[in-house]
Amino acid sequence: MTDRSAAVPAAALAELTSRLPPGSVVTDPDVLGSYTRDRELWAPAHPPGAVVRPAETEQVATVLRWASEHGIAVVPRGAGSGLTGAANALAGSVVLSLEAMDRVLTMDRDDHYAVVQPGVVTADLKRLAAAEGLRYAPDPGSAEFCTIGGNVATNAGGLCCLKYGVTRDAVLGLEVVLADGRTLRAGGRTVKNVAGLDLVGLFVGSEGLLGVVTEVTVRLHPAPLALGTLVATFDDLTAAGRAVARVLAAGRPSMCELMDAPTLRAVEAFRPSGLDTDAAALLLVQTDDGDAEAIARCAQACEEAGAAFVMTTHDAAEAEMLTMARRTAVDALEARGRWMLEDVCVPLSAVPELVAGCQRIGERHGVTVACFGHIGDGNMHPTVIFAPDDADAERRAQLATHDVAKLGLRLGGTVTGEHGVGQAKRDAMAEQVGPLHLDVQRAIKRALDPAGILNPGKSLG
Amino acid sequence: MTDRSAAVPAAALAELTSRLPPGSVVTDPDVLGSYTRDRELWAPAHPPGAVVRPAETEQVATVLRWASEHGIAVVPRGAGSGLTGAANALAGSVVLSLEAMDRVLTMDRDDHYAVVQPGVVTADLKRLAAAEGLRYAPDPGSAEFCTIGGNVATNAGGLCCLKYGVTRDAVLGLEVVLADGRTLRAGGRTVKNVAGLDLVGLFVGSEGLLGVVTEVTVRLHPAPLALGTLVATFDDLTAAGRAVARVLAAGRPSMCELMDAPTLRAVEAFRPSGLDTDAAALLLVQTDDGDAEAIARCAQACEEAGAAFVMTTHDAAEAEMLTMARRTAVDALEARGRWMLEDVCVPLSAVPELVAGCQRIGERHGVTVACFGHIGDGNMHPTVIFAPDDADAERRAQLATHDVAKLGLRLGGTVTGEHGVGQAKRDAMAEQVGPLHLDVQRAIKRALDPAGILNPGKSLG
Repeated sequence: MTDRSAAVPAAALAELTSRLPPGSVVTDPDVLGSYTRDRELWAPAHPPGAVVRPAETEQVATVLRWASEHGIAVVPRGAGSGLTGAANALAGSVVLSLEAMDRVLTMDRDDHYAVVQPGVVTADLKRLAAAEGLRYAPDPGSAEFCTIGGNVATNAGGLCCLKYGVTRDAVLGLEVVLADGRTLRAGGRTVKNVAGLDLVGLFVGSEGLLGVVTEVTVRLHPAPLALGTLVATFDDLTAAGRAVARVLAAGRPSMCELMDAPTLRAVEAFRPSGLDTDAAALLLVQTDDGDAEAIARCAQACEEAGAAFVMTTHDAAEAEMLTMARRTAVDALEARGRWMLEDVCVPLSAVPELVAGCQRIGERHGVTVACFGHIGDGNMHPTVIFAPDDADAERRAQLATHDVAKLGLRLGGTVTGEHGVGQAKRDAMAEQVGPLHLDVQRAIKRALDPAGILNPGKSLG
Repeated sequence: MTDRSAAVPAAALAELTSRLPPGSVVTDPDVLGSYTRDRELWAPAHPPGAVVRPAETEQVATVLRWASEHGIAVVPRGAGSGLTGAANALAGSVVLSLEAMDRVLTMDRDDHYAVVQPGVVTADLKRLAAAEGLRYAPDPGSAEFCTIGGNVATNAGGLCCLKYGVTRDAVLGLEVVLADGRTLRAGGRTVKNVAGLDLVGLFVGSEGLLGVVTEVTVRLHPAPLALGTLVATFDDLTAAGRAVARVLAAGRPSMCELMDAPTLRAVEAFRPSGLDTDAAALLLVQTDDGDAEAIARCAQACEEAGAAFVMTTHDAAEAEMLTMARRTAVDALEARGRWMLEDVCVPLSAVPELVAGCQRIGERHGVTVACFGHIGDGNMHPTVIFAPDDADAERRAQLATHDVAKLGLRLGGTVTGEHGVGQAKRDAMAEQVGPLHLDVQRAIKRALDPAGILNPGKSLG
């Protein structure tokens, strides 16, 4: 692999090494190999020429100044848990891993915010906030191993968003190192702020194309009050969709998740808990305020919509058991073969058609497409499962993911709700937003990164 | 005034007139005069050379293409209800008024969104949504006369934001005519969407500097369930501040407003209703979900924080009466002299110091500074009242507004929470965000409006 790292000129690399603390620049081929790609399966990737692990903002600035001077591509990387190839390395690039910048700098109980470095693991921040009687709301499925920096880069969502919004809604302020090494501070600690263009919002979800986030000020909410939890099953998808609309009006839930039949069967096979594997859909709803009746109203809404079975609980242990089924969906599907998790968001009323359409796509291509996700937001994760070590199955799986994105567009939706574009969704995004939108995005990219060193080839191509 | 309209070359104006339907281009001096400024008092303004009132998007595109070709400044204008001089006209400019584009194009009950033109009055949209069992959440004080286009331009907020966010949180998609006349569509109808850079969020709050919004897709929420309303008075500001922190945790209110002593005295004098004019502060809290106990918990929180008086109600008529006091604050202050309403947002714990500091600023300059606003968000509207027809009082009022912004910054806040920058906050914004932030803003402005025809001189200077 030495020939590959040589793609970063040795003199330039020596110069970078001399400008940073010992050990910051890594060129060991085995290490480089482990920084090659994220969890997406098919996007191009190549071991980088070097991995740099800065410990502070000024070192990030040093790397970007150096990269600008030498015209070397920089691929910012969080935990590598992404699902679009956004963090995949390129030949001759430097991967800038933020993993060593992992400190919580401030946790302000009175003013409901925290200041964290990008390498903080999301679940760790959630636990630290909870210990102060607060909640960091964003809740991506990968919370136990993804990091805040990556969440900001993709505008990650999760099971929380229905009531508390996505990562963008949780970010009050950012420190960002720009392509030329200058360090920008945007936003602040206040909930509202219209002092100039919304640079914070622009950097959130920009997938490392506009700058490298080195510090994040996040909003915290008061901790949940009483939890109410509901599980309902439905014999047909349309009834489940009808139930969701009613549940949203009746109960103001903090969570509203759906699992379709293929997902249910996978989860029950993986960890048997008596799930009804003949049901067309299972709905999981949670309320989190003081309204003891809210979950009962949700239950009534489900019954009126034609649920086959409904149960509710206010017991925390029981709730944990019920939500566990949903939270193990990815593991359960993973156990069935190789998997690629898609991320389509459509208007609420189109979800039943999306789910049914995904199953048909699976049948057409001879793979399983299991649908689960955040139905309250119209945001589903059709997951394509296929046999490992079977090139033809893999090819058919790729066709299926392509068709899923097309279906999302046809239903008036987006090809990516919370995972980002990266490489996997580049063409589909272009089709979705059209040439003028791309032009405007590129104009902004050029304005902030004229040399094009930041994560080239991702998202905008 | 004919010499002023002549600042737009006659030949160019004739060309524009010929490209648009009859009556679209207005040059009557009396009409031009009425499009000169918004509600801010002191920023420079000059009657425009012409007012154009397009009826559809293609006409907006025609105006911007024409302006780009001739290098003529375009000042987009909503209802003129802004408070920063953002809509003030310039000599030789064309005011592009969106008032005639005032149709609600879609109201989708199932998928909880509406598509509206920019000239729709905010309160009209709220009423139309309510008739469908839905709610358009943003609730600026000017809702009865401001328009959605202006709300988008300033990222307007109001009394709703604590629970439902600001205008940016309510905008799912936009149609925007760019400086060169091309028509961009960004976003869509889905709640989550990360297909590319967040252009929707960037245009919201951009005060007409980046493009002209011609269509807005807004998110609607289910209508409120039971309302609980609370009024509490406090003998000192610190206790009121303490109460707010506890109320937020206990009750998840949809509204949490404060009026200080000068505001209370003005409101009681304007429309006597037995308000305690000796109180240091009055807190108005509302909950809007099904939790009948929430407002009682808020009341308990106020009592524990040391409230002098607390009352709650679940009666709609009584609630209307209680909230009326807060809603008449601006009228009541207006009755006391000329007024300038400021817009400072600080971390929650700093609000008592902000309010006390504003009163001291008033004393120092011999004017009244009355503080009221959205304390749950830390967003207060210190309002400077001064004698009309008194040049020295007016000068002192200007000094006071300057000092209020400085105080907001010193307390870790922003000089504008929901009103925008315009001209009034230009210098303070520059001080707040610093030169690099301005550089980045300007780079984006140049990328989208290279000729600088869109609202020049506003916000970025």
